[in-house]
Amino acid sequence: MSGIKLTYVKGRGFGESGRLIMAAAGVEWEEAHLTDKAQFEKLKQDGLLMFGQVPLLQIDGLNIVQSRAIIQYLANKFDMAGKTAADKAKVNMIIEGAKDFGIFHGIAFHPKESQAGLIAENKKKAENRYLPAFEKLLSGSNSGYFVGDSLTAADVLVFEDLLFMEDYLPGLTASYPKLQVFFEKMKGNPKLSAYLSSDKRFPIPDDKYVAEVIKVLY
Amino acid sequence: MSGIKLTYVKGRGFGESGRLIMAAAGVEWEEAHLTDKAQFEKLKQDGLLMFGQVPLLQIDGLNIVQSRAIIQYLANKFDMAGKTAADKAKVNMIIEGAKDFGIFHGIAFHPKESQAGLIAENKKKAENRYLPAFEKLLSGSNSGYFVGDSLTAADVLVFEDLLFMEDYLPGLTASYPKLQVFFEKMKGNPKLSAYLSSDKRFPIPDDKYVAEVIKVLY
Repeated sequence: MSGIKLTYVKGRGFGESGRLIMAAAGVEWEEAHLTDKAQFEKLKQDGLLMFGQVPLLQIDGLNIVQSRAIIQYLANKFDMAGKTAADKAKVNMIIEGAKDFGIFHGIAFHPKESQAGLIAENKKKAENRYLPAFEKLLSGSNSGYFVGDSLTAADVLVFEDLLFMEDYLPGLTASYPKLQVFFEKMKGNPKLSAYLSSDKRFPIPDDKYVAEVIKVLY
Repeated sequence: MSGIKLTYVKGRGFGESGRLIMAAAGVEWEEAHLTDKAQFEKLKQDGLLMFGQVPLLQIDGLNIVQSRAIIQYLANKFDMAGKTAADKAKVNMIIEGAKDFGIFHGIAFHPKESQAGLIAENKKKAENRYLPAFEKLLSGSNSGYFVGDSLTAADVLVFEDLLFMEDYLPGLTASYPKLQVFFEKMKGNPKLSAYLSSDKRFPIPDDKYVAEVIKVLY
């Protein structure tokens, strides 16, 4: 084992970016799932959670919390942060765009009757801002990756969003040819594909998961 | 001149972390303020804004958007990102905690009648989560800085929040002795102090600013 352990609830949420980066890097990690409040309280009492929140990534003797700090650490460790200062800046800009575009993550936590409206609203945001921006970025790429000539955390974060979007709005990437090619290329990545078809990958959030998250974390 | 230019509206907002890091580093930068929608539209048309948003930091020939990408770039450039991989992780965790704690930034954008309630709610969040977490981190520090033996972006981001909190809830840090010492130390930093008393530092958001932001950006 690599000795890497990710502690989170049993879903994608704020843990998924880290999981996808580790999957893309081809490393193994252990998962620990919080399924009751007492486990969560114990982690807090043990002083492992700097701000009393998960996910927690235990790696190289460190207890890393905050999804973006996890992303940065893993991206640096696995050479997915960009090679030059300029590339690193671009990777970070795209990571942040992808984070803002993470608008499909929270839908299941809203009341059923408002979800269709939210999906429609998010479709507009996707079409007006994020999908054209990603398409433009890929149009300037020779490698088919967002930055430089190899896979970076920027690719992984955009891929994470596209997968989530696909769950709610299948086929929406089809109008963006470069992004569509990118999406297929990422789906075809053997390491990512192995992860996505493994039992480590969680499905789209359902009522049971939402209830469990609320019970455990709130 | 350093050739660094920050483009944003005439307020703290998402531009302030970058300004404070540059101030702490002792570098000069030029400010460009968007005061009407046409200026903003021109920046978008010129392709300078990756996701159609400001702030924009022009530095070293790059057009960096997204406040966190700006923070990372400046922190790396000015040796405020932490020295080791472990310190870098800690700096990023604290930056993210400080970003979550940035709960006072948006108050002026809410309806007048809900602001007192929001301030009370934010006071609870501050006392229940962030101030004790920061106090604990400083209790483990020998230098009085959050990470390692010199000033990092983590210090700057927490300082930014404490200044904003002080505007709404003066004296709240007094119950946290280490944090109080830290706050005074940062206020006494000659470079930060010079910035804070300069006309580059914007006051707490008022009605005029809120109206201008809405007119220019939305």
